[in-house]
Order: sequence, then C-alpha cells, then structure tokens
Amino acid sequence: MSKITAGIIIIGDEILYGRTQDTNSNFMAKELVRAGIQLNEIRVIDDNCKNIMKTVQEFHKTYTYVFTTGGIGPTHDDITSESISLAFNKKYTINAQAFKILEEYYPKGKFNKNRQKMAMMPENAELILNPLTVAPGFRIKNIYVLPGVPEIMRKMFLNLLVNLKKGHPKKFSTINTNLYESVIASELCKIQDKNLDCSIGSYPYFNFIKKSGGVNIVVSSWEREDLTDINAQIAKMISILGGKCFIV
Amino acid sequence: MSKITAGIIIIGDEILYGRTQDTNSNFMAKELVRAGIQLNEIRVIDDNCKNIMKTVQEFHKTYTYVFTTGGIGPTHDDITSESISLAFNKKYTINAQAFKILEEYYPKGKFNKNRQKMAMMPENAELILNPLTVAPGFRIKNIYVLPGVPEIMRKMFLNLLVNLKKGHPKKFSTINTNLYESVIASELCKIQDKNLDCSIGSYPYFNFIKKSGGVNIVVSSWEREDLTDINAQIAKMISILGGKCFIV
Repeated sequence: MSKITAGIIIIGDEILYGRTQDTNSNFMAKELVRAGIQLNEIRVIDDNCKNIMKTVQEFHKTYTYVFTTGGIGPTHDDITSESISLAFNKKYTINAQAFKILEEYYPKGKFNKNRQKMAMMPENAELILNPLTVAPGFRIKNIYVLPGVPEIMRKMFLNLLVNLKKGHPKKFSTINTNLYESVIASELCKIQDKNLDCSIGSYPYFNFIKKSGGVNIVVSSWEREDLTDINAQIAKMISILGGKCFIV
Repeated sequence: MSKITAGIIIIGDEILYGRTQDTNSNFMAKELVRAGIQLNEIRVIDDNCKNIMKTVQEFHKTYTYVFTTGGIGPTHDDITSESISLAFNKKYTINAQAFKILEEYYPKGKFNKNRQKMAMMPENAELILNPLTVAPGFRIKNIYVLPGVPEIMRKMFLNLLVNLKKGHPKKFSTINTNLYESVIASELCKIQDKNLDCSIGSYPYFNFIKKSGGVNIVVSSWEREDLTDINAQIAKMISILGGKCFIV
C-alpha cells in the first residue's frame, strides 16, 4: 500500500524575519502522524507571488496532501489566494458561497470591498469553513489553504482532517537513558540493523549547569503493531552498558 | 548593491512528526535580520541522504549563506555530514583538527569509534568550534553545518555570524491598532503604494473570549533609514478611521 504523504507551506515574511515563531506546522505535524499521514517536508516562504506559485506547483505534484497557512486575509499583503489561482491557471474570482457567508456575518453596509476580498479565490474552489471568524479557507486540487492565525487555523485544520484519507498510524515509543549518545551509538546501530521495519532516532539533551545529560531514543514504525520486543532489546543494551533507562 | 541572502535547512525526522518544535530557525531568523542578511527560505526535511543532498545543492546555488541544523552527532541516524560530502563530491573523512579537539576532550581510552565519527566531515571543511560540548560543526563552500541541540547551535551560530559579510540592517517599526484588518485594508494599501521602498505587513490577532482584536502593522525597509514619515501616515489614517494606535 503506498504511503499517504503531506507537505506544509508556511507563507509569511513575519516568520522569515523572526517576528513570529511558526507553531502551525508543529500542530499539523502532530495531527498528521496520528492520522497515519507522513509529513515529508515543511517550507517557509515569503509573501511573494512567484515563490508561492512555484512551491504549490511542486508540492502539488509531490505529495498526497498539501497545506498552506497565511496570506488569505483582506489586506494588500495577503496574496496567497491570487497566487494559487495563477499557479493552476484558475480564474481568481468571487466565490458565491463565501460571499454569502461573509455578507450574512457583517452588519448591513459593513461588508466593504476589503471584506469582499476574503471571498476571492480560485474558480471552483471548495470552501473550508471557519467557525471562529467566518472568512473561509479553501481547497483546490490537493491544496488546502488555511489562515495563519493559529487559533483559527487549528479549528479549520481539525475539521478538514476528518475528511482526509487516513493511513495506518505510525507506532511510537520513547526510551530515556542517562547514558550519552556516544556511549550507546554502536550498539544502537546494531539494533537498528536488526529491526529494519523500525526507525530509531536518537535525541541527546544536556544540562550545562549540572553537567549531565542523556538521550531520548525514539522508536517508530509504520509497519509494526507492537514495539515491546525492540524496546526490550534497547533496555537490555542500556543495562549492559551500565545505564539507567525508562520507557517514557 | 546586491542583497546578502540566506536559506536555512532544518534536518530531522523529529520535527516532521511533531515531537520537536523547531526553534532554531526563529533564533537564526532574528539574528540574520539584525545582521542585514535577508533570510529567504526555511526548509524542514527528513533524515534522508538524497533529500539532504538535493536541498543543500539547491540552496548552495540560490543563497549567499546556507545554514543547516541537525544530524551531526555520533549515532546511526546522524547522516548530515556524509550526505553533504556526497552532495559536493568530497571525500567523507576524518578531519585532523576535529579529531585532535575531541581526543583531548575525552578521558584516555574513552575516545571510541562513535565519538570519532564526530570528526568525520567533507575533506577540507573548515571547523565551527563548539564551546559547550566540543564536537565541532563545519563550513564547506557556503554551507554552515550546525548541530540541532538549541543551546549548542545558538552559541556556535553567534560565533560564526561575526565572520559573515553583513548587509545594512533592515529597519522595522510596529504600530498596533484596535481596528480590524478589514477596516484599514484599503487605506493601508494606498499608503503601501505611496511608499514602495517600504514593505507593510498586517498581522491580525483576536481575543475570542473578549470578542475583540486588532492588528499589528509592521513596516520594514532595507533602504529607508527613518520610518517616522510612513508611521505618521499610518497613524493619521487610523485616527481618521476612528481607531486608537500606538507605536510598539
């Protein structure tokens, strides 16, 4: 069975000059792994039409699902919807359903030109509803276009996730040890070589004040249902090397 | 004068399955903008030799400076140094200076094979010293290869930054208003059109409990020394529209 894959495109100058710490991709990453969808890449790009076009075209061809955040508001720097329309040769136009939703939301006479811009999207886009501030996102082909404000993005993402094709969730376990990476590396590599249907990641940490540290060993597998056996191999190895370990 | 540009490559499965929130790119982004270096792209990729090779080759050609984090430790999943060697047809070999630093650091008899792996890098790489845990990063061509552990990466990044070619720092100002984006969008766009040497970003926020919100308007410019005039135009516009504003 071929893997269901995803790519995330974070659109926004504010990330690239460090004003904003992107947390949207981490939120989506956690949800995707739970849904059995393999996130292969995250790209942060600027508010630049050509770069948006090029990146969505490339991701469209590469991944099962593509998620973008940012740049769909009412201001001049919100160019994501128009850029995506251009990328797929779609007319950038008023979406009647989005227009109606927004028109009903704003007080009479307050649905101005700027707000109407939020109803502009590629022709035949499918709406992604926004339960918080109404202005919808949309899907065109395999591209899901979401806003950048985290509270809003999260609700919309969880809603759309319900309708995506899911894979078998990846199994995970984490083993913590007080041994350093360089102590366990050879033996850990041997365990990796004997368990090729699992992937063993090794994540060191240090406490520079206490001059101590250790490693979190993360075992993951798309295929294996039960990680007890490989965890036991790792625990035994740590014990032989004189370390302490516990399964997190 | 042509702009000095940068791209960041974050290497690590743990970011892509959401275990770790990447904060390294945000740290570097802030420092780069201060140094007058324009960060154009951040890419998060998996621990995969082909993807690392392809991405560093592309970034090498595209940006003045390229920074990678992650994958240079002693374990089997640390494949960054070898992949970068392959990407540039360089021999992946023991760096004598790195070997010496590590050998002197570890107690006699403790400089094992795993630890020696941390001295392996592309032939003729230039070391980036590590004041915390000794194991160095390296530079090859315009690629600066750093570890993923944030405390260590930060120290090494600040040290190497001293020796990079700097640009004229980008000027920034932030104006906060209680008006919504859709209220100010048209007038803000006009101000943008009259000040093409500045870039105006509009970042809305919402308090869903208080049902209030507003916008942070960020003005930035590589060319202009003084943003007083454009800030005054924005403040005047907000006042005419009946909003409050203050310069953050």
